[in-house]
Amino acid sequence: MTALNHSSPREIAAIDIGSNSFHMVVARIVGQSLQIISRHKQRVHLASGLDDHQNLNQAAIQRGLNCLAMFAERLQGFEPENVRIAATYTLRQARNVHIFLKRAETIIPYPIEIIPGTEEARLIYLGVAHTQPDSGQKLVVDIGGGSTELVIGDNFTPQLAYSKHMGCVSYNQHYFHNGKISAKNFNAAQLAAQQKIESIATNYQTRGWETAIGSSGTIKAIREVLIAKGHADGVITAKRLQWLEEQLLSFKHNDDIELEGLSDDRKPVFAAGVAILTGVFKSLNIDEMIFSDGALREGLLYEMEERFRHSDIRTRTADAMAQQYNIDTAQAKRVKQTAETIYSQIDAHPSLAKSELQPLLSWGALLHEVGLSISYPGFHRHSAYLLRHSTMPGFNLEQQTVLATLVRFQRKSLKLEEMPVLSIYKRKHLYPLIRTLRLAVALNGQRTDVPLPTMSVTSNKEAWTLTFEDGWEQDNKLLAADLHKEQEYWTKVGWELEITPLTDDDD
Amino acid sequence: MTALNHSSPREIAAIDIGSNSFHMVVARIVGQSLQIISRHKQRVHLASGLDDHQNLNQAAIQRGLNCLAMFAERLQGFEPENVRIAATYTLRQARNVHIFLKRAETIIPYPIEIIPGTEEARLIYLGVAHTQPDSGQKLVVDIGGGSTELVIGDNFTPQLAYSKHMGCVSYNQHYFHNGKISAKNFNAAQLAAQQKIESIATNYQTRGWETAIGSSGTIKAIREVLIAKGHADGVITAKRLQWLEEQLLSFKHNDDIELEGLSDDRKPVFAAGVAILTGVFKSLNIDEMIFSDGALREGLLYEMEERFRHSDIRTRTADAMAQQYNIDTAQAKRVKQTAETIYSQIDAHPSLAKSELQPLLSWGALLHEVGLSISYPGFHRHSAYLLRHSTMPGFNLEQQTVLATLVRFQRKSLKLEEMPVLSIYKRKHLYPLIRTLRLAVALNGQRTDVPLPTMSVTSNKEAWTLTFEDGWEQDNKLLAADLHKEQEYWTKVGWELEITPLTDDDD
Repeated sequence: MTALNHSSPREIAAIDIGSNSFHMVVARIVGQSLQIISRHKQRVHLASGLDDHQNLNQAAIQRGLNCLAMFAERLQGFEPENVRIAATYTLRQARNVHIFLKRAETIIPYPIEIIPGTEEARLIYLGVAHTQPDSGQKLVVDIGGGSTELVIGDNFTPQLAYSKHMGCVSYNQHYFHNGKISAKNFNAAQLAAQQKIESIATNYQTRGWETAIGSSGTIKAIREVLIAKGHADGVITAKRLQWLEEQLLSFKHNDDIELEGLSDDRKPVFAAGVAILTGVFKSLNIDEMIFSDGALREGLLYEMEERFRHSDIRTRTADAMAQQYNIDTAQAKRVKQTAETIYSQIDAHPSLAKSELQPLLSWGALLHEVGLSISYPGFHRHSAYLLRHSTMPGFNLEQQTVLATLVRFQRKSLKLEEMPVLSIYKRKHLYPLIRTLRLAVALNGQRTDVPLPTMSVTSNKEAWTLTFEDGWEQDNKLLAADLHKEQEYWTKVGWELEITPLTDDDD
Repeated sequence: MTALNHSSPREIAAIDIGSNSFHMVVARIVGQSLQIISRHKQRVHLASGLDDHQNLNQAAIQRGLNCLAMFAERLQGFEPENVRIAATYTLRQARNVHIFLKRAETIIPYPIEIIPGTEEARLIYLGVAHTQPDSGQKLVVDIGGGSTELVIGDNFTPQLAYSKHMGCVSYNQHYFHNGKISAKNFNAAQLAAQQKIESIATNYQTRGWETAIGSSGTIKAIREVLIAKGHADGVITAKRLQWLEEQLLSFKHNDDIELEGLSDDRKPVFAAGVAILTGVFKSLNIDEMIFSDGALREGLLYEMEERFRHSDIRTRTADAMAQQYNIDTAQAKRVKQTAETIYSQIDAHPSLAKSELQPLLSWGALLHEVGLSISYPGFHRHSAYLLRHSTMPGFNLEQQTVLATLVRFQRKSLKLEEMPVLSIYKRKHLYPLIRTLRLAVALNGQRTDVPLPTMSVTSNKEAWTLTFEDGWEQDNKLLAADLHKEQEYWTKVGWELEITPLTDDDD
């Protein structure tokens, strides 16, 4: 993507499909900075629609779609590259997420990315860091409806980032049955929160921070109650949380809570939120916490802006993985270059811009051998496992799945029945990438810098043709044997690979 | 295992269940060296009994068992710690391997270890290195019935080790249909061998070697034909292989081959073996190759001897993995120590010596968090993946499966239906290890060096009891909550975990 020269400033938008609320922020890129021009929020309570089998019920799906339809109106005329939509905990969990995504497609014309928890944590940190004046070591805590993110970072760089399965909606359901408040319920929720954090607590305390910052609705609501009580600085302290807990325990039911500064629609999940934050304070030994307006959506915006202006964080991630798994860089570069050359010659799938998938092909080519660090036999499967499951800053779940699928099918039999279910892309979008990567791998099978014979590629749907200069087979017997083997693999799944010499007519 | 003080020298034995032949070697440990006292070999043609669905047919199974019964006679009175049996390619491949192993149990009272290809390569190298006078950089090539190992090493340390799916039995079946010899068949087999090695050839040539050494039957047979022809030095050169190829092509069928020095029972797979070695010579650009008597079985023997005398290579492997995946060493040590303490207190399974499984528990505890390097969510599964699939010198497939299973079940729900099928051990052997590791992990959940409350463990089959000093829960609320959570996991699968205070009666 190249930066375009608009006469008016570029407008970008980010939507956060949260477990409790959906948020949209629209901003204008002015010079080197972002100017937020509108914010939209709707409480959708998506997480409360998850049943015991982790299926999202119809009512919740409909509430979510209604909200997206409203946001879509505001985004009319926005180019796809100027909008990012990220979904978190509830859509990560929902087994029937595909129903939601399929229906959303017809309502809002931008892909919904389901992002992993650590990616959510990273983006929240980015959102907070960009809205914070001080640049020192920060602890950022974000209690959402379904998950809580805890990040320590320095300046704009997160150093420790975890997402834990606890949120004000899910904890309310689990520990405050039917909205009943009691000391027992509150303590159980608080202890459960401590158990969740236990394994990382020592590590976080050792790393330390100068400023503890909270973000998002739960912590904002707590801050507002404290301000209404007269703590004008809005700082959350352990002592003030203790006071809040005592206040809450004087009520029998979520509906009964009467606290100045607390909105009606926050009440149902407020006690659970306070219990979680109290648990976090105890586990991490936090003295005081300030609040920041930055959150996931701002993180998305700042990252979009950075992608336009600077490098893509995904490139840094891919480079770091290549290094961590000690890949043969020379070979990775050869395969990447061959893949890019081939991809530039073939016809794109009509429904999808080639430019959208080409970066994934390049990263896949760069990382196709990471699995060799585990073991040689079946290394394509090991590569796929690592790309599917590793923490990869900047990549969403769908992109990791695409990368894993590409490297899974780089060699050996095309067991296409093992293709995963995708949400944003279709299988047919991936097939040209798989064919390209396979050819690039086969062509570089000898792992040397000896130039390949002159070659061109043409594609006609499933039928691809490699055209070589006449007589090439004489000097490249091994390469020819490898390509014929590759031909056999293609034939078995109904693809066609023709290998022809260049005739005079083609000149 | 402690070294015993025998009045007579210790005798040890190794059996190699190969795809073409079974071998047994018996040796005596005399001072610092091994004295081979007997060798046994039987051509079993196991690989030729693999059908198209990778099932081993009854006739082949029976041939194998007959041979093992014969070997077992020779081993009467040998202690289990003095015998190692390793099976390679054909049993790695056979889908019905469990039938073979089950029947073998009643015939020969020592476990049969199925070893991964790279482990086979490493042991072959060890066997050759110990029987070689010179200590420089070596290339070792071993063409077996089902696989070919290629190793480069220095002194006793292998540096590059691969096992490729090509062997004289399988290539004969695939490229010399019905034993028919022709230039076309020979060239196809030879080119296929080159394709198999292609991906590693550059790397091997770059690394280089001073001496190329062949081992095992195929290369031995080639050497003997060359010696019979008058090449008294027994060196295999590219030119001599060329001559051998020409000789072979003058025959129409394997049965017709008449070459001085070639035994009748080698004839059916000789042409395939020569084709593979010719391919190896071309791919790696080998000038000449000498032969070594050392092979897999000697590797097994030398490693047994080394385990008695020195350290266990598996300890080095585990330490190297801990380092590669950058684990929290302090936590690993805490969990390992707690696990060892608990295991020493519980009752062993009657049918199995505790000492046999305890090392696996310790390695499992040391490595239980390797998966964190991939990502935190589901890291126990990532740990299991790495331990199951990594190249781990010194471990056989069963041991890797046990380690993977232990770490898989270190935390969260006990989905015991996901337990793998084991061959040497039974599930019931693993359950006490799993319970022990889980308790060690839960007890060290806070990842600190703060001492645990005083505790003892008793076990009565599925029912275990943790006894703490009275009042411990007051000061260890989080630990108590974690153990109660653990209790719930146990209850769900019908195990029992009682947590009791120490009463005065117990004093």
